Amino acid sequence: MNQQALKNILTKVQEGQLSVKDALDGMKNLYFEDMGFAHVDHHRSIRKGFPEVIYGAGKTVEQIAGIMERMAAQGDVVLVTRLDPEKGQQLLSRFPQSSYDGQARMLILEETPLPETGRGKIVVACAGTSDIPVAREAFLTAKAMGNRVDIVCDVGVAGLHRLMAYRELMESATVIVAVAGMEGALPSVVAGLFAKPVIAVPTSIGYGTSFNGLTALLAMLNSCASNVAVVNIDNGFGAGYIASTINR
Amino acid sequence: MNQQALKNILTKVQEGQLSVKDALDGMKNLYFEDMGFAHVDHHRSIRKGFPEVIYGAGKTVEQIAGIMERMAAQGDVVLVTRLDPEKGQQLLSRFPQSSYDGQARMLILEETPLPETGRGKIVVACAGTSDIPVAREAFLTAKAMGNRVDIVCDVGVAGLHRLMAYRELMESATVIVAVAGMEGALPSVVAGLFAKPVIAVPTSIGYGTSFNGLTALLAMLNSCASNVAVVNIDNGFGAGYIASTINR
Amino acid sequence: MNQQALKNILTKVQEGQLSVKDALDGMKNLYFEDMGFAHVDHHRSIRKGFPEVIYGAGKTVEQIAGIMERMAAQGDVVLVTRLDPEKGQQLLSRFPQSSYDGQARMLILEETPLPETGRGKIVVACAGTSDIPVAREAFLTAKAMGNRVDIVCDVGVAGLHRLMAYRELMESATVIVAVAGMEGALPSVVAGLFAKPVIAVPTSIGYGTSFNGLTALLAMLNSCASNVAVVNIDNGFGAGYIASTINR
Amino acid sequence: MNQQALKNILTKVQEGQLSVKDALDGMKNLYFEDMGFAHVDHHRSIRKGFPEVIYGAGKTVEQIAGIMERMAAQGDVVLVTRLDPEKGQQLLSRFPQSSYDGQARMLILEETPLPETGRGKIVVACAGTSDIPVAREAFLTAKAMGNRVDIVCDVGVAGLHRLMAYRELMESATVIVAVAGMEGALPSVVAGLFAKPVIAVPTSIGYGTSFNGLTALLAMLNSCASNVAVVNIDNGFGAGYIASTINR
Amino acid sequence: MNQQALKNILTKVQEGQLSVKDALDGMKNLYFEDMGFAHVDHHRSIRKGFPEVIYGAGKTVEQIAGIMERMAAQGDVVLVTRLDPEKGQQLLSRFPQSSYDGQARMLILEETPLPETGRGKIVVACAGTSDIPVAREAFLTAKAMGNRVDIVCDVGVAGLHRLMAYRELMESATVIVAVAGMEGALPSVVAGLFAKPVIAVPTSIGYGTSFNGLTALLAMLNSCASNVAVVNIDNGFGAGYIASTINR
Amino acid sequence: MNQQALKNILTKVQEGQLSVKDALDGMKNLYFEDMGFAHVDHHRSIRKGFPEVIYGAGKTVEQIAGIMERMAAQGDVVLVTRLDPEKGQQLLSRFPQSSYDGQARMLILEETPLPETGRGKIVVACAGTSDIPVAREAFLTAKAMGNRVDIVCDVGVAGLHRLMAYRELMESATVIVAVAGMEGALPSVVAGLFAKPVIAVPTSIGYGTSFNGLTALLAMLNSCASNVAVVNIDNGFGAGYIASTINR
Amino acid sequence: MNQQALKNILTKVQEGQLSVKDALDGMKNLYFEDMGFAHVDHHRSIRKGFPEVIYGAGKTVEQIAGIMERMAAQGDVVLVTRLDPEKGQQLLSRFPQSSYDGQARMLILEETPLPETGRGKIVVACAGTSDIPVAREAFLTAKAMGNRVDIVCDVGVAGLHRLMAYRELMESATVIVAVAGMEGALPSVVAGLFAKPVIAVPTSIGYGTSFNGLTALLAMLNSCASNVAVVNIDNGFGAGYIASTINR
Amino acid sequence: MNQQALKNILTKVQEGQLSVKDALDGMKNLYFEDMGFAHVDHHRSIRKGFPEVIYGAGKTVEQIAGIMERMAAQGDVVLVTRLDPEKGQQLLSRFPQSSYDGQARMLILEETPLPETGRGKIVVACAGTSDIPVAREAFLTAKAMGNRVDIVCDVGVAGLHRLMAYRELMESATVIVAVAGMEGALPSVVAGLFAKPVIAVPTSIGYGTSFNGLTALLAMLNSCASNVAVVNIDNGFGAGYIASTINR
Repeated sequence: MNQQALKNILTKVQEGQLSVKDALDGMKNLYFEDMGFAHVDHHRSIRKGFPEVIYGAGKTVEQIAGIMERMAAQGDVVLVTRLDPEKGQQLLSRFPQSSYDGQARMLILEETPLPETGRGKIVVACAGTSDIPVAREAFLTAKAMGNRVDIVCDVGVAGLHRLMAYRELMESATVIVAVAGMEGALPSVVAGLFAKPVIAVPTSIGYGTSFNGLTALLAMLNSCASNVAVVNIDNGFGAGYIASTINR
Repeated sequence: MNQQALKNILTKVQEGQLSVKDALDGMKNLYFEDMGFAHVDHHRSIRKGFPEVIYGAGKTVEQIAGIMERMAAQGDVVLVTRLDPEKGQQLLSRFPQSSYDGQARMLILEETPLPETGRGKIVVACAGTSDIPVAREAFLTAKAMGNRVDIVCDVGVAGLHRLMAYRELMESATVIVAVAGMEGALPSVVAGLFAKPVIAVPTSIGYGTSFNGLTALLAMLNSCASNVAVVNIDNGFGAGYIASTINR
Repeated sequence: MNQQALKNILTKVQEGQLSVKDALDGMKNLYFEDMGFAHVDHHRSIRKGFPEVIYGAGKTVEQIAGIMERMAAQGDVVLVTRLDPEKGQQLLSRFPQSSYDGQARMLILEETPLPETGRGKIVVACAGTSDIPVAREAFLTAKAMGNRVDIVCDVGVAGLHRLMAYRELMESATVIVAVAGMEGALPSVVAGLFAKPVIAVPTSIGYGTSFNGLTALLAMLNSCASNVAVVNIDNGFGAGYIASTINR
Repeated sequence: MNQQALKNILTKVQEGQLSVKDALDGMKNLYFEDMGFAHVDHHRSIRKGFPEVIYGAGKTVEQIAGIMERMAAQGDVVLVTRLDPEKGQQLLSRFPQSSYDGQARMLILEETPLPETGRGKIVVACAGTSDIPVAREAFLTAKAMGNRVDIVCDVGVAGLHRLMAYRELMESATVIVAVAGMEGALPSVVAGLFAKPVIAVPTSIGYGTSFNGLTALLAMLNSCASNVAVVNIDNGFGAGYIASTINR
Repeated sequence: MNQQALKNILTKVQEGQLSVKDALDGMKNLYFEDMGFAHVDHHRSIRKGFPEVIYGAGKTVEQIAGIMERMAAQGDVVLVTRLDPEKGQQLLSRFPQSSYDGQARMLILEETPLPETGRGKIVVACAGTSDIPVAREAFLTAKAMGNRVDIVCDVGVAGLHRLMAYRELMESATVIVAVAGMEGALPSVVAGLFAKPVIAVPTSIGYGTSFNGLTALLAMLNSCASNVAVVNIDNGFGAGYIASTINR
Repeated sequence: MNQQALKNILTKVQEGQLSVKDALDGMKNLYFEDMGFAHVDHHRSIRKGFPEVIYGAGKTVEQIAGIMERMAAQGDVVLVTRLDPEKGQQLLSRFPQSSYDGQARMLILEETPLPETGRGKIVVACAGTSDIPVAREAFLTAKAMGNRVDIVCDVGVAGLHRLMAYRELMESATVIVAVAGMEGALPSVVAGLFAKPVIAVPTSIGYGTSFNGLTALLAMLNSCASNVAVVNIDNGFGAGYIASTINR
Repeated sequence: MNQQALKNILTKVQEGQLSVKDALDGMKNLYFEDMGFAHVDHHRSIRKGFPEVIYGAGKTVEQIAGIMERMAAQGDVVLVTRLDPEKGQQLLSRFPQSSYDGQARMLILEETPLPETGRGKIVVACAGTSDIPVAREAFLTAKAMGNRVDIVCDVGVAGLHRLMAYRELMESATVIVAVAGMEGALPSVVAGLFAKPVIAVPTSIGYGTSFNGLTALLAMLNSCASNVAVVNIDNGFGAGYIASTINR
Repeated sequence: MNQQALKNILTKVQEGQLSVKDALDGMKNLYFEDMGFAHVDHHRSIRKGFPEVIYGAGKTVEQIAGIMERMAAQGDVVLVTRLDPEKGQQLLSRFPQSSYDGQARMLILEETPLPETGRGKIVVACAGTSDIPVAREAFLTAKAMGNRVDIVCDVGVAGLHRLMAYRELMESATVIVAVAGMEGALPSVVAGLFAKPVIAVPTSIGYGTSFNGLTALLAMLNSCASNVAVVNIDNGFGAGYIASTINR
């Protein structure tokens, strides 16, 4: 699927170095590794500039470790998200050079950290103390992907002056990640004040009609400020990831 | 059901002025007037300090006019809500002393306006120009119920400085009615700034996932500021009504 | 953001007692205290007449204790809501002068209780025995905020005569908090009988299509009586809080 | 499928009056008439004690008239529900002996009205004037099915004394049909007061979070009184029908 | 509220045996017993022909036992619903003459069982083996309320011939309770075959889009057969109760 | 993307008949035609055995006619779905050899009808007269795709004997399309009786909690019979299409 | 209900070998076995070509074992679905010749495996590693029902080249089962590429707005490719079952 | 609120050029213009780099024209969104130098078009012909905000090769706007192929369970590719706006 790779194959066929049958087969095996339960997508690193990320929920430690080994063998940075502490500990002991963050429930394995390569800075802001785990997932993801990142916590709209105190920091960002639960008003207010792309992350913090973050999500999708786009509930990882592509 | 009325009946029974059977009958007929299609609740004026209000939607002009006549005959202030312009014009020509507000879709008939009797002032604030009809319904209701009322429009959270300019007015209120559609963040911000009861009114302004006001409603119910209570979507009338009971 | 504080700063600048830079800095540090994971909003006490309240769910004992210490140091009344019994016990042993209510799951720390300052009385009524925890949260909140409060339990609409027995108490209230689960009809009936602002609190009591309180919430929002406004499901705290601002 | 009919067929087979093949064929043709677009269920009258009822919505005048003719030819009472006025007029002119009720949007054709055969009386009560069309559909259905029926309108819970005035009537019923929109509290209150089966009919009257009757429906399903069962929104016909089977 | 009781009071007042003040007080205390956490509704037995039923979920063993004692003292049949096995055992040991049904999660205490008084028989039918607990709750409730009741299990629409085998039993019923989860089609089919009132009970059996019984509920509300009315999801108790009022 | 086409290209490159650049270009232009507002997918006919179908809703007559011309030029059978009568008439006059079905709202243009090529027969059954338009859309689609198709109407579960009369027809099908609105029980019953794949089509027929077909859809997804799969609400076209692929 | 069986009975009646009464009785007992809590549907094997399958959730080990014994006694293949590991182990020790699959949570008991009888091959494809349990349930079901089946895992749309590598396998299928969670796009892409009936199975894999599989389900129902039909969330069993009927 | 403006005011107060009272007043009037029904936010242009945009729905022509005049007087580019054709024509005749796009329902008034200032190119891609209006709204917005923009239509996932043909264009973008209705799979596939931030716009194209775009929205929020963020349904404007801030 890679234009250049295809060109190479065609050229080899043209030059008689490759039979038609082998060309067809080669295109099949070029891009991934079949582990039975998973197809590790080695091509992603080239295609998207960052390797596949392992979604930890619903996978066994064995499955995760298996995928990690293949990826580490390629020298890739390995991120495992939504990893509960127990599995985190088991993987830590198998990959001692990795680190596990209990709040973000994230495991990171990087031989050599990626250099900071973004064109500016990402700022992650969250509304309340309870939103920190999600904000931290965004922070760690963006950092692992080679960005300068700052984080500011507990600056929700019930006390606007707290947000106002960070105006200069906000103005210095290339992109802002705004994390909030309950009524999810923070991204609207932030986007109304600053001329930046705002990636809004609803969290499941709240009760009753917060519907585990649905209310915050809906509020963010209906922001009266227009420089807001939204990711899934509690998806700090996705916010950090897209912020990183924006900051490139 | 009225304690005093019951006492009077009992006293008359005690004094032999009323038979047991007549007492029972009297209790049945005391409180309302049967029009076949409606039971006009004359007792409400005594019980609740303001007469029944006519919900115009789904009633014919004939039905509304019939109820209005019974109420006017008792000297009551008559409010008709959710009255479309066509019916409004027909009723205006039958009750020339009444007035019809096209934005709020409300008809008001008051021989003598109620005197201003509240303990303070009600302030109605709305987020956008499109929210004005609902805000105006709250304004007119509260006014008809004998309150001093102020109204401020287009002060939504996308440009917070507009709201800030009305701080003194807000501080002067006994109760604030905050009207907003889309993400419905205005009541949270207002309630975070001012130590007043805030009656939040979600409006159906928006599109897509605003779900005709549901998103604004949910956001308001999940306000991180605690001095907020919410009424039904587009229910300016209810907001004006309860604000009025608070201001008494 | 406080008009008077701003005036003082401006006056000092005018009088040369404060440099422009210090004025800008002063405005930043005036209002809150940065604890990393939280920005304690000391300004709220001045702005809103009651200090910040700690939402206990999703915070660690360490985080809560940290915030409590800062607040207690300012002499503030400290309320912690949605605090499970285990954390409650740990905080009790660290703050022996505090009290923990197991039904309402609330911790209160007040050196000197606030004097009763409201203009009247708040009455909390609940429909069933199972609604008591929420009703009690409203009761304790309103009490801690300096109000006279009465509570009446198990007066739901399946046996209307039980409610009728408390008519005089209801009539004596400035504001009524009506708490109900299942079909949530109590606030409608109460608001139909008494000319008071009614703050309706839906509870998650019920099963099947009660949808954890959603049905009660929807019913309350659609009350055919107009003096009703609604708070989030199980939000006894919010109901007590806004009732308190109404009673001021 | 009718036990007796089957017995007759089997007996005829036993007695040699019917071949096996004819027996099989006879069972196929016994019960309905194939009109291409419809299978008129003549057997229903025997099986269920009342003939098929025509659901008018989404059928053409031609289709309805065709079915009516087949049914009238059998001497059946014909009910057409959800019939808009325009189609109603066209059918009236084709079936001059029929009658059309504009409120209930129902056409009835009965050569000889069914005699009153129920064991008692059905009472239909509705909460507001706007609920009358649905209440009337229940009333007309029950009447056409041979029941004594009474109807009481505008006795909603915002003015409970209006309902109380009809206590004796209510007590005299075998079954009560309670019709209400908005918060749908009437059936709960009625079922709390009277030891009767209460068939609750939610109506689509209301706005915003009434969600076209969903809120009333949910409230009725969660009634804290247990003698309540519910039919679909605006389904006056179904309520009248099942009330009729109860009254048999 | 009882017409006769009121008449008695009035007569006593007329005859001078009761002062007006005592009459007013008497009306307050006549009907229930205040236990602080509950108002036991002794009047219900007279008003509705069956005493209050205790909803066990969310009540402590102490609260339940307290209410049971008051009720037993009046000679009432006591039903406790939604009682988990652990609480059930504790109450069994305190009320040894009571019986606990583990499937229906129901405790029954009756000194002398109610005589069978209904005008006919109630039949409870359920679609699958997993629906038995709900069906059994309906069965036990109707039995405790003095009815003849039969129960048939596992006769769902995936194998219609199983239902057909019980046609005579079905035909013998005054009212049928039809219990089903998943697509909830049983009540439609039953009501299409038999001219009886059918009380439909959706159960939470199923997975995915069964949405814990919501799908079955919706299907039942939209039955193309008209002699169907529906109760809340898993509400076997309510179905047994209303069936009992129908069978009276 | 077509294996054979790719092989041909590779072979030509190998044989020097095609340059690498031309090979790359050829792969781009092989498969569709760019009309600015549409990319007509000529490749689909080869890839999927039937050409692209035009979704008429939301397209102008000009857009549809433009696509039709390109497709007709290729000799393809052209199907236009969800085409309202007005547009239908305009297209009929431009393509006189086409035919328009007013019930199914479908336009078909086929120079030479496809020969019947399926391995058996498709039977379409619908529950009520109002479901006919959707059933007919399935019927016409399957027919246009070269299948033998039979259609049976008004055989819903309220009168099961009507369905039973068509048992032999049902048994003769390779695949059954079962169309129903309201409670959507027909597919469950059909799939319980016959060992065939049943494609269930929910229709928007009904009112209130039928939620425009959602209830029927949910019921069908929860069928207790396992040989059922479901398509979108009112998607007769899709049902006919997949039935056709099954019958191949 | 079986035409032939009915014919036999009728013939016997005709020939005097069977009395009318016995004929009626015989029809009742022909088809199932009453176990009190279940009616084992022995007729299903004849009617539908595969015996009843036991839905393990919500049944006790005793109930399941009981049904298994009756079925095994008839020589039927026994499938138990949704069986948790603990129950699985208990049943394994009672039926040592059975096998339990921990991923699919399925128990299979077959004296002699069904011979492969389908007209082609079924291919099961799943999007991610976490979807494997559902895919495996489909695989095992189809296999137990006598089909050739292949399974391919982790070929989701985030790396399309992985799917492309299995084109030949896909092309060789009679029917494809496509299993996916999250945004559920796999079936659309597969159905766009291959001219096969695609049975789409949404899984509950995801978080936040995946709503336990609802999002994947909705996406699949709205596929822009038409050869897709959908089963319930996580219903691998149903997908395997209907695929099997298609492959016959 | 602008740090610099505040500094200027403070400096003037320090220098005695401004009294404290005038300073306070000045801060109030600095930022917007009060038109009674609207507060035109002149400050937005400075604060956010682009002036306020007029939401046309629910505003009268008079209101829109009034706001346009104030904005045009400031030399601002004026965008009016969601403007129906009739209002569009009226405004065109009042502002002849403006242009109205009937597909996007957008009016643009720019004396001098903004120069192209972004750091790269924005590419807008839509899945079907029916999605063009929304895609075009994104295109026009981004263009008016000074970006280079390309648009590609009808490249949905049912025919992937169409998308593949635009790979080079996609690779050349700084940010991609992906617009799709129905199952909304386009953004997932695009984001899986290209290492760009993808702004996903769900459209209301579809029927039945597309729920007016909700399904597409949910699918996009659950994309298995991580470089996706989502805006409200049909919100082409917002997508173009945030894409523009990303491209800056």
